[in-house]
Amino acid sequence: MKSHRKELWFNTSKRRQLLNITPEVDKALQESKISEGLCLVNAMHITASVFINDDEGGLHNDYEKWLEKLAPEKPYSQYQHNGYEDNADAHLKRTIMGREVVVAITNGQLDLGPWEQIFYGEFDGMRRKRVLVKIIGE
Amino acid sequence: MKSHRKELWFNTSKRRQLLNITPEVDKALQESKISEGLCLVNAMHITASVFINDDEGGLHNDYEKWLEKLAPEKPYSQYQHNGYEDNADAHLKRTIMGREVVVAITNGQLDLGPWEQIFYGEFDGMRRKRVLVKIIGE
Amino acid sequence: MKSHRKELWFNTSKRRQLLNITPEVDKALQESKISEGLCLVNAMHITASVFINDDEGGLHNDYEKWLEKLAPEKPYSQYQHNGYEDNADAHLKRTIMGREVVVAITNGQLDLGPWEQIFYGEFDGMRRKRVLVKIIGE
Repeated sequence: MKSHRKELWFNTSKRRQLLNITPEVDKALQESKISEGLCLVNAMHITASVFINDDEGGLHNDYEKWLEKLAPEKPYSQYQHNGYEDNADAHLKRTIMGREVVVAITNGQLDLGPWEQIFYGEFDGMRRKRVLVKIIGE
Repeated sequence: MKSHRKELWFNTSKRRQLLNITPEVDKALQESKISEGLCLVNAMHITASVFINDDEGGLHNDYEKWLEKLAPEKPYSQYQHNGYEDNADAHLKRTIMGREVVVAITNGQLDLGPWEQIFYGEFDGMRRKRVLVKIIGE
Repeated sequence: MKSHRKELWFNTSKRRQLLNITPEVDKALQESKISEGLCLVNAMHITASVFINDDEGGLHNDYEKWLEKLAPEKPYSQYQHNGYEDNADAHLKRTIMGREVVVAITNGQLDLGPWEQIFYGEFDGMRRKRVLVKIIGE
């Protein structure tokens, strides 16, 4: 069994932002030389998400509006977590979007459906944060 | 390390439908001859889900009502994604329900709790769509 | 390839409770003697969750309030699942929080970000329930 580990670093310009990281994950896979296995991609921070969905701008705007409805950023005082911090909403938004994805590796490729793209979902950005890629297989 | 890959195809008669796919996943496991490992089961489409919960009709009706409250299908115009398409709500519903499950394989069996059943959750159906089963282990 | 399986049992004193189980998962990892691989941690019951977030009391109170808003416990009669049972809300809350996490194993350690902690999220407690830890690797 082989394994490969890589950290991907991001620093978004906005508090909330969605980045398509499929090319970076694919690059890590090519470096791994693994052709059959599983690839874990997870946010290493608890106010960010890794998820799979469509790379379509309208949908991304829908996500922003929807997440603000389900877990609004303001007023900050509505959350007990917000004493020294103001990011409680980011913990909740990331809970909805999920921490991680596991992707099958087949014939040395990410085994994704036709529209599946891997995203980094940042909900408390404007600072350097990490994603972990861990691949195991043969 | 051994690996096994199988696609399961579904074509639901309704826009939204929940299908218990535990027997199909178990069949893929038996074909794999893997006795210890991990089994990834994921929707290959971004308006569908694979999740684990109870095979109980009342609960499934509760899911339908609840998801319609959290991410209503109509009016279609409330979502920017809905230009040529009308399925933005399906992207959001699938986000709540999750893309994938990872199930332990122990002694050649799906290592599930007493009430755990694996479901395909379709939120934009009435066409052929796929689930990926990928098993690795020994 | 090596594999290790362990069940963790919990019996919470309240209907809803969040327990930091990172030390127990780490103990299972040390027992496994696996240094590179993947660790699956999943609730074996469908009204409980395993998730990763911050071990901060204010945030945990925010989760309680937020989940009660998204999927209220009462009135019990709002859910069809609640005939002989009264736990439909727990199925929905666990759906939001997620069934499982997959954690990378690197150099014999849980490869977690600086604030990542693994939690058992109980939403229908006061009885003995299980979490499964399954580790594969080398």
